[in-house]
Amino acid sequence: MSTATYTVTGMTCGHCVSSVKEEVGQIAGVTGVDVDLETGRVTVTSDAPIDEAAVKDAVEEAGYELKP
Amino acid sequence: MSTATYTVTGMTCGHCVSSVKEEVGQIAGVTGVDVDLETGRVTVTSDAPIDEAAVKDAVEEAGYELKP
Repeated sequence: MSTATYTVTGMTCGHCVSSVKEEVGQIAGVTGVDVDLETGRVTVTSDAPIDEAAVKDAVEEAGYELKP
Repeated sequence: MSTATYTVTGMTCGHCVSSVKEEVGQIAGVTGVDVDLETGRVTVTSDAPIDEAAVKDAVEEAGYELKP
């Protein structure tokens, strides 16, 4: 199992959290996505390490930005 | 045709706007709902005047508050 943590900017409410969870959760191999709205911390759990580019794409697809 | 304007507090993003539009739009007789996120102004257009209590209920159902 692999866990990675990212910081996402632009989320303002529970709907934003849901959007990020949904998009990131669709990445192949992802088994769990935990989002803390206040800090923007997104924890991604997966069977094997996930390419950060895939996470970035998913976050942007949801309408937010991955903090470099 | 009747138009009434309310102020809703708590909306932070486009998802919030969509939620308010959806709930208020479901009130019988409502033909249009316009929401300005920055000011919180919600303009409700209807065939006949709408009871403010129904608008208040819909806004609260969406998770926000109608400013008195």
